[in-house]
Amino acid sequence: MFRVTRRYEFAASHRLHAPQLGAEENRRLYGKCNHPYGHGHNYVVEVSARGPLDAATGRAVDTALLDELVARQVLVPFGHCNLNEEIDSFKRVVPTSENLAVEICHRLKENWSAVFPGAWPRLEKIRIAETARNIFEIRADEIE
Amino acid sequence: MFRVTRRYEFAASHRLHAPQLGAEENRRLYGKCNHPYGHGHNYVVEVSARGPLDAATGRAVDTALLDELVARQVLVPFGHCNLNEEIDSFKRVVPTSENLAVEICHRLKENWSAVFPGAWPRLEKIRIAETARNIFEIRADEIE
Amino acid sequence: MFRVTRRYEFAASHRLHAPQLGAEENRRLYGKCNHPYGHGHNYVVEVSARGPLDAATGRAVDTALLDELVARQVLVPFGHCNLNEEIDSFKRVVPTSENLAVEICHRLKENWSAVFPGAWPRLEKIRIAETARNIFEIRADEIE
Amino acid sequence: MFRVTRRYEFAASHRLHAPQLGAEENRRLYGKCNHPYGHGHNYVVEVSARGPLDAATGRAVDTALLDELVARQVLVPFGHCNLNEEIDSFKRVVPTSENLAVEICHRLKENWSAVFPGAWPRLEKIRIAETARNIFEIRADEIE
Amino acid sequence: MFRVTRRYEFAASHRLHAPQLGAEENRRLYGKCNHPYGHGHNYVVEVSARGPLDAATGRAVDTALLDELVARQVLVPFGHCNLNEEIDSFKRVVPTSENLAVEICHRLKENWSAVFPGAWPRLEKIRIAETARNIFEIRADEIE
Amino acid sequence: MFRVTRRYEFAASHRLHAPQLGAEENRRLYGKCNHPYGHGHNYVVEVSARGPLDAATGRAVDTALLDELVARQVLVPFGHCNLNEEIDSFKRVVPTSENLAVEICHRLKENWSAVFPGAWPRLEKIRIAETARNIFEIRADEIE
Repeated sequence: MFRVTRRYEFAASHRLHAPQLGAEENRRLYGKCNHPYGHGHNYVVEVSARGPLDAATGRAVDTALLDELVARQVLVPFGHCNLNEEIDSFKRVVPTSENLAVEICHRLKENWSAVFPGAWPRLEKIRIAETARNIFEIRADEIE
Repeated sequence: MFRVTRRYEFAASHRLHAPQLGAEENRRLYGKCNHPYGHGHNYVVEVSARGPLDAATGRAVDTALLDELVARQVLVPFGHCNLNEEIDSFKRVVPTSENLAVEICHRLKENWSAVFPGAWPRLEKIRIAETARNIFEIRADEIE
Repeated sequence: MFRVTRRYEFAASHRLHAPQLGAEENRRLYGKCNHPYGHGHNYVVEVSARGPLDAATGRAVDTALLDELVARQVLVPFGHCNLNEEIDSFKRVVPTSENLAVEICHRLKENWSAVFPGAWPRLEKIRIAETARNIFEIRADEIE
Repeated sequence: MFRVTRRYEFAASHRLHAPQLGAEENRRLYGKCNHPYGHGHNYVVEVSARGPLDAATGRAVDTALLDELVARQVLVPFGHCNLNEEIDSFKRVVPTSENLAVEICHRLKENWSAVFPGAWPRLEKIRIAETARNIFEIRADEIE
Repeated sequence: MFRVTRRYEFAASHRLHAPQLGAEENRRLYGKCNHPYGHGHNYVVEVSARGPLDAATGRAVDTALLDELVARQVLVPFGHCNLNEEIDSFKRVVPTSENLAVEICHRLKENWSAVFPGAWPRLEKIRIAETARNIFEIRADEIE
Repeated sequence: MFRVTRRYEFAASHRLHAPQLGAEENRRLYGKCNHPYGHGHNYVVEVSARGPLDAATGRAVDTALLDELVARQVLVPFGHCNLNEEIDSFKRVVPTSENLAVEICHRLKENWSAVFPGAWPRLEKIRIAETARNIFEIRADEIE
């Protein structure tokens, strides 16, 4: 069993603000990330898949297929966008890096079997570095 | 003569759009950076100062003073902000990294002598990495 | 379930020397790290916590609280110090990165519930990079 | 229980080409990595071992011994070589990073007990970064 | 005046061997880089251009044009190739990083005015990192 | 003309304290770096040399010779040492990174012509990163 990880980057902006909470509570909770006009990051997203070696090719994941899937589902729609304004799901939930990881995981899982119809490889993990000091990970099997 | 460089980071958002040019020309010119809702970066700013060694202290620059100046003039006002909406000078010029470097250089030069009243150290260079692949530098003596 | 990791740095000095072993055995065992006057590192410490998403805030860990805890228990006492001379526990055990990880883990666990009184988040892992080529990890649940 | 990881680098060249498949299939499968004259990488290899603390030394792994083993079995034979032409096992299997990880794992496991005769430390994991965006991991206990 | 730098990467293989020198002299001179089957690197190439700000666009270099030029002249022909076998000029000179920098500089200078017909921006500098520890720079105006 | 840069690392400890100044002035001046027991860093030292291409070898600097010189004059004596206690010149001057750069430059200049007896290459620049955020450079021709 191998874990194959590809690292991608995109630049986007966001504002952390929970509409059901008051202004002061939002400021306390999110600090500078609650500034009214938003700010942005160079997000680094690592997508890990897991699978056995294909004996003929010597590979566990066809990374060209994975790159295409991630580009279509994540890099194109999220790249150079304002997450709050342009991504539907962030109209319902605050675009924290946790929720961003969940959203990326959902998008990849929904479209995974169309790209990888066999039993393997499987999506294993999403890791987002909002900055080099601030890192968020989820396992795909813990997200429905 | 020494060059002393301090590296700082801040996260901000911007949109590249020149109001005097048409919509199509803006799209051609700035590509994805012209997306209407803006996007963002973790900006890495390196500030270089130049000066001789102080024989008593063995230092060329009092970096605590430099840090304080950069925090007050750059990191606090620019950090977690939308450059287009919240920084006055970017209402007149497009917040490209080139113009950001000019603005940072202006702010440090205007306030330099209040912090460093002697002949040395002098502000030498501003270097901005918008991403690790995209780097902009100006020399302070080429900016009025 | 999310893993949230924060990366911190501090500079400190240490000397690897086990008093119960002879001079020659110490030299063989620790090599250059046994030099009598000590040496130092820019330690990079990653603290990982684990927890479910808070639906209201979209976050798994209040990172401001975590930062405060780590600063108080680790960065302030260890930063710019000599680990052998200034940290009590390293009078009893050699300040290897393994023991440093144990000490950091103890300090965070002892003070965790005062900062995070709920069931979650929990401290999961401490990772120390003594240099970029030399990395040590422990899981918090393997340390009493 | 500690995980101790050492990071090593070597430069080598390879060509991805499965002799049992046709020319076109090889091109489709490996893309640019199938170019007839080969290409190369600065491979970054991380070797992780796992073990309890030795109370006398405060260490979980004698890293000098590990370094020597990795140098002899991996860095010397693979460094500055053409993997296809100079490493026997890559005459039978394609030198993908997956197979490279397997080969490194085999070499370390075969020679492990001569260097570390006790119950601990054990080889845990091999991680290869072909480039910073392309990462492969295997667990030693999943390889016979 | 601004310096704008773009960072690019490509993977290639090479062998250092000067045909006019004997086998032993080649071994002494190039060490492991003289191994008969060659080896490879992830080359990091930084291309710096220099120019004044365009007041309308707020930019000193149209980086989309620069990227296109570098892709066509450098990344496509050199990427995933064997420099000795596939690049004509390295049949006459040894593909050291110094000669690689000269070759890249020649290719960009020859095609520069077709892409940037005005007085500015000008090609300023080529910087090649063969590894993170091994860096080579030339100024474009020192190369005919 | 080429600039060839080699990056080296060593771990050492130091304390910033100017004996001719009072305790309070030392604390104000050096902050945490004045802590009585010292602290340490993973110093990254870049040594740049400058020279023309040797047409036969395709190289501007024999880097094996440079590595040997730097190892003998810098890495061996400074590595894993306490700069204040073990390096003579730091009994007379405070071991700031500025003075460390001067000391390294002196040592390389004094021994340069024994290793590189010709007109070229020449030592050009020493760059020390005490941490990734704190960088010091001197030009060799500005040091006697």
